[in-house]
Amino acid sequence: MTKHQLLPKLETAYDLHGMSVAQLQQLAAEIRDVLCNLLQERTAHFASNLGVVELALALHSMFDFRHDRLIWDTGHQIYPHKLITGRYHEFQTIRTKGGLMGYPNPQESEYDLFMTGHAGSSIATLSGMRSGDDLLGEEKRRAVAVIGDGAFPSGIVFEALNNISGLKQDLLIVLNDNKMSICPRVGGMASYLDRLRTSPFYSGLKQEVVRILDNVPLLGDPVERFLAQLKEGVKAGLHGGMLFEELGLRYLGPIDGHNIGLLRKYLQMVKDLKGPILLHVVTEKGHGYTPAAEDPVFFHTPPAFTQENGSPVPRKSAAQPAYTNLVSSAIFEAMRKNPRVTVLTAAMCQGNKLERLRDEMPDRFFDTGICESHTVAFAAGQAKVGLRPVVNIYSTFLQRSYDQIFQEVALQNLPVVFTMDRAGLTGPDGPTHHGAFDIAYMRCLPNIVVMAPGDGWDVAPMFEFALRQPGPVSMRYPKANAASLSNIATNGHSFERQPIELGRAEVLRWGPDGVILCLGTLLDECLKAADVLNADGLEIGVINARFAKPIDREIVERAARECGFIVTVEEGCLMGGFGSAVLESANEMGLETSRIKRLGIPDQFIEHGERAELLADLGLNAEGIAAACRELAEQGEGVVSV
Amino acid sequence: MTKHQLLPKLETAYDLHGMSVAQLQQLAAEIRDVLCNLLQERTAHFASNLGVVELALALHSMFDFRHDRLIWDTGHQIYPHKLITGRYHEFQTIRTKGGLMGYPNPQESEYDLFMTGHAGSSIATLSGMRSGDDLLGEEKRRAVAVIGDGAFPSGIVFEALNNISGLKQDLLIVLNDNKMSICPRVGGMASYLDRLRTSPFYSGLKQEVVRILDNVPLLGDPVERFLAQLKEGVKAGLHGGMLFEELGLRYLGPIDGHNIGLLRKYLQMVKDLKGPILLHVVTEKGHGYTPAAEDPVFFHTPPAFTQENGSPVPRKSAAQPAYTNLVSSAIFEAMRKNPRVTVLTAAMCQGNKLERLRDEMPDRFFDTGICESHTVAFAAGQAKVGLRPVVNIYSTFLQRSYDQIFQEVALQNLPVVFTMDRAGLTGPDGPTHHGAFDIAYMRCLPNIVVMAPGDGWDVAPMFEFALRQPGPVSMRYPKANAASLSNIATNGHSFERQPIELGRAEVLRWGPDGVILCLGTLLDECLKAADVLNADGLEIGVINARFAKPIDREIVERAARECGFIVTVEEGCLMGGFGSAVLESANEMGLETSRIKRLGIPDQFIEHGERAELLADLGLNAEGIAAACRELAEQGEGVVSV
Repeated sequence: MTKHQLLPKLETAYDLHGMSVAQLQQLAAEIRDVLCNLLQERTAHFASNLGVVELALALHSMFDFRHDRLIWDTGHQIYPHKLITGRYHEFQTIRTKGGLMGYPNPQESEYDLFMTGHAGSSIATLSGMRSGDDLLGEEKRRAVAVIGDGAFPSGIVFEALNNISGLKQDLLIVLNDNKMSICPRVGGMASYLDRLRTSPFYSGLKQEVVRILDNVPLLGDPVERFLAQLKEGVKAGLHGGMLFEELGLRYLGPIDGHNIGLLRKYLQMVKDLKGPILLHVVTEKGHGYTPAAEDPVFFHTPPAFTQENGSPVPRKSAAQPAYTNLVSSAIFEAMRKNPRVTVLTAAMCQGNKLERLRDEMPDRFFDTGICESHTVAFAAGQAKVGLRPVVNIYSTFLQRSYDQIFQEVALQNLPVVFTMDRAGLTGPDGPTHHGAFDIAYMRCLPNIVVMAPGDGWDVAPMFEFALRQPGPVSMRYPKANAASLSNIATNGHSFERQPIELGRAEVLRWGPDGVILCLGTLLDECLKAADVLNADGLEIGVINARFAKPIDREIVERAARECGFIVTVEEGCLMGGFGSAVLESANEMGLETSRIKRLGIPDQFIEHGERAELLADLGLNAEGIAAACRELAEQGEGVVSV
Repeated sequence: MTKHQLLPKLETAYDLHGMSVAQLQQLAAEIRDVLCNLLQERTAHFASNLGVVELALALHSMFDFRHDRLIWDTGHQIYPHKLITGRYHEFQTIRTKGGLMGYPNPQESEYDLFMTGHAGSSIATLSGMRSGDDLLGEEKRRAVAVIGDGAFPSGIVFEALNNISGLKQDLLIVLNDNKMSICPRVGGMASYLDRLRTSPFYSGLKQEVVRILDNVPLLGDPVERFLAQLKEGVKAGLHGGMLFEELGLRYLGPIDGHNIGLLRKYLQMVKDLKGPILLHVVTEKGHGYTPAAEDPVFFHTPPAFTQENGSPVPRKSAAQPAYTNLVSSAIFEAMRKNPRVTVLTAAMCQGNKLERLRDEMPDRFFDTGICESHTVAFAAGQAKVGLRPVVNIYSTFLQRSYDQIFQEVALQNLPVVFTMDRAGLTGPDGPTHHGAFDIAYMRCLPNIVVMAPGDGWDVAPMFEFALRQPGPVSMRYPKANAASLSNIATNGHSFERQPIELGRAEVLRWGPDGVILCLGTLLDECLKAADVLNADGLEIGVINARFAKPIDREIVERAARECGFIVTVEEGCLMGGFGSAVLESANEMGLETSRIKRLGIPDQFIEHGERAELLADLGLNAEGIAAACRELAEQGEGVVSV
């Protein structure tokens, strides 16, 4: 790290205040160097961070965010901010367990106010802080949110803009426009921003207006034609962010977000203006590293890569297919067979591996942008008229549409299939991205079938089953490579896989000493645990639950009556989750439950780290599951021997 | 009903197609007569229905919504639509159990496509239907959504507008602008609509534009001043819905929504236009009934009233205070004592009885409009900087902000207090409004304390307790009058009320034969049940659980060990609810649970009707609770005698 001259010496970001533009430019180069080096180590958010280097430097050089308020929306573009706010020396730990988080983290630094991973809420939280500072007499604290154009169409952004305008709050919103969501952005706002971007802010404007005004026929035409022409003329000629101005914001821009001097000039101009300001800054995702600038989708969160002859070469990936790929293939096959099947994503085309579906069946592929509420209601509309929409949204982001799942889907009992990716512990992204709560929040809603495949084999038939149901179905799966039971479970055990039937679990092995009842893809760990216990002389059954709702009551009853104990396993929250569903059904059948033990995610937010590390910490791997079984077996012997 | 000439004879709304404007006006008068008569019978949505009479008639006279698609957003303005789509003769049953629903209901009529009670999702669902009709070759079906200006700032509206513009769908959105949310509307969009309304659509425009253009200094001034002036000028002069046009919608209006002829002319003009159209219709909430037009807030859902000397006189209301009032008073007192306490509502100032707080402490009262997502994130911002925000939102509407409860509040562990009104069965509003799921969806999130007062006495100390907590707290209560235990429970039992302590239940009576462990305000029914059972010789305890999270494990353990059975009671869903929390804690303590029975809302959507009727149907009144206890007591004897 000795090659960095300035970065290691920064104590706080306030040190930037005395620096020249040339020094800030050098810092920008050093930050880019750190980012490029990191990416050779591990997967991380990359292109978006390269895009905000100058913006982060300009902001910190003009404000003091130990006192002023700064929120980075969505949070994954926080790396330059971290590097200049006292975290350079530990930066190499980012996204590793115990190291820096890849998102803002108030526990790391006073410079990070909110842990943000879901998009769009920055303006609302900033507005709340502004309101609090005003009420508490802290008017001197300035308030800034940086939000990307990808997050901008989120409903909460509009709700917040509508409200800050009504409150006339002194806020600076920096719209970081890099023309991208994670995938290319979509919709009316995107087109609008495109028009703003391509317009000459200063130079061309005057002549343009004059030209148009010359051509407006002020007399003689029908009123409506006049009106239409006038509007078109003004739309073409006026590049001043009328949409935002109409909502009550003062609009400035667009300006070049890689020109530190210009950024500073504009920040100086707006920092003490009254009322809400929108500063439109144009950046390039991946700026300063050509491969990333040329392919910002791939370089949003690229796999770790090595440099070969100046080009990045991704490291080898795992041999097993990821669940994401299996689900994507299942959707693809269903769409090929059935013209009524559509697929919807909320800007996660890449994360959900839907590129092939988009390219081959574009009329049935819908990327709504980061608009999960709309996505689900839109899917309900499609289902209402006879389509079979598949909503492919990460477990944690689907929380954005909870009310639409309730009203538009479950209440109407419409056949929408939810394929919830990233269900469980997502790994290095940490608590904003872990999909811990979906079993609990889904199963309490009437009419919904709640499922999880036990392994890669389950995926395709379970998805086909979902599409045959008359009402809503959810299917969750983790960010992980897919084990296949037929490989794992042949260790002395042979079995034929069972077809998917509503509310039926699949018994892989029966065990008089105890059974492990697993919902979801920790099933391979359960089988390994059973093997270990088997070697110890315990005959432990393993059941692929498949359904959290409806629960297979027959199996629960049989296991409770015949087996020494039941251990439930899930990669989801214990409060109200699958294990609780098992307890509920046992209780309703009047069964004894004290020999049931539930394993899952405890009632706390789980840190970031590799998924396997986190699962091990929570006792959700073969060792932990075996230990839990052993403890129950020993207690059982104790009971018998008394 | 003999005084109605036309309305009783309508077989389908298609009959309107042949009618003259005069006949449609007569129908409008007959519809208003029905509405005014109904309001003398019972509480119902009133002013908003009076406002859309002509609009409903005009729409049905120009479209055939057996084939074309029509969604009434929010749904409570569905009455005129119901009266002209074959439901005149059963209309008097509306909002009674087994009768018509007060919202659209697909089970009642092919004219009702979605059951809508939550605001703003109409455009998204309509867009989904349009997309489906297009894919399935049904281009000939036209698609119309009617959405009020109150619902318009909801985030999902913006998400949908952004998407329909990108998809270039043929959709007609009728913006029914009555200048009101349920309470007066707020925010930047409201101001914008006000400007549109007060502008001369046709006549004044030309002169205005000329005047402005004359005054624009085209030469000599600094560029920025020029720009600012130009913008202001265009803003003042151009009244053509630029904001919507910029988003890619074609804007028309504003037009008078009570002029059937004009409405029909405009609908004729736009019905076959390509692309998304926004037709801005101005109506008066309460139109045609002077008291309602003068006080549309009161007449949104007025109590049943009688006519006296031409003025409406509300019927007597109940003697006991409603929980809503008690909570409002508790917030008021807290705000008086502590300048850091703020209160937030999402357009429910009236429903939450917050008028006095708004009027006396306007700087700490925040009505965000129907923007629940923003509201919660905004509250998090306030809490972050040291305020103590109270988010006062109905249980079912809070679902809109589930992701913000997760990310902005629970994950940051910020002290936001959620006072959830309408938790439980709300009565005549039915399934869109019942607050059935909040215990389940709240308690699975880490860091949140989940509470419910057992009676009116609990409210104030529980709220004060909530404000003292260092993290998030939720407190749910029903739409009901508040019983007071000190009155009820003195029937041979005396007790001193216990202060609120974290995770501590309040034992009202202990019962060796069994205990009823109740979360929330069905506690009075539990006490009545215990009295009845006592008369039968059973000594049944009653416990005011107060906390669903953390659960009072000590009490659960003691009850499980000492008492014949435990019955849990809650006015919430059984799946994942309070009873499940009790099961979980008993299970974690290794206790036997087969003598625990859970009473609550079963896994289905509950119809509309009076709350007491619905509770009785679900066995959630004294009789039902006593019956459940009796059954357990008998089973227990059976077990002993074997």
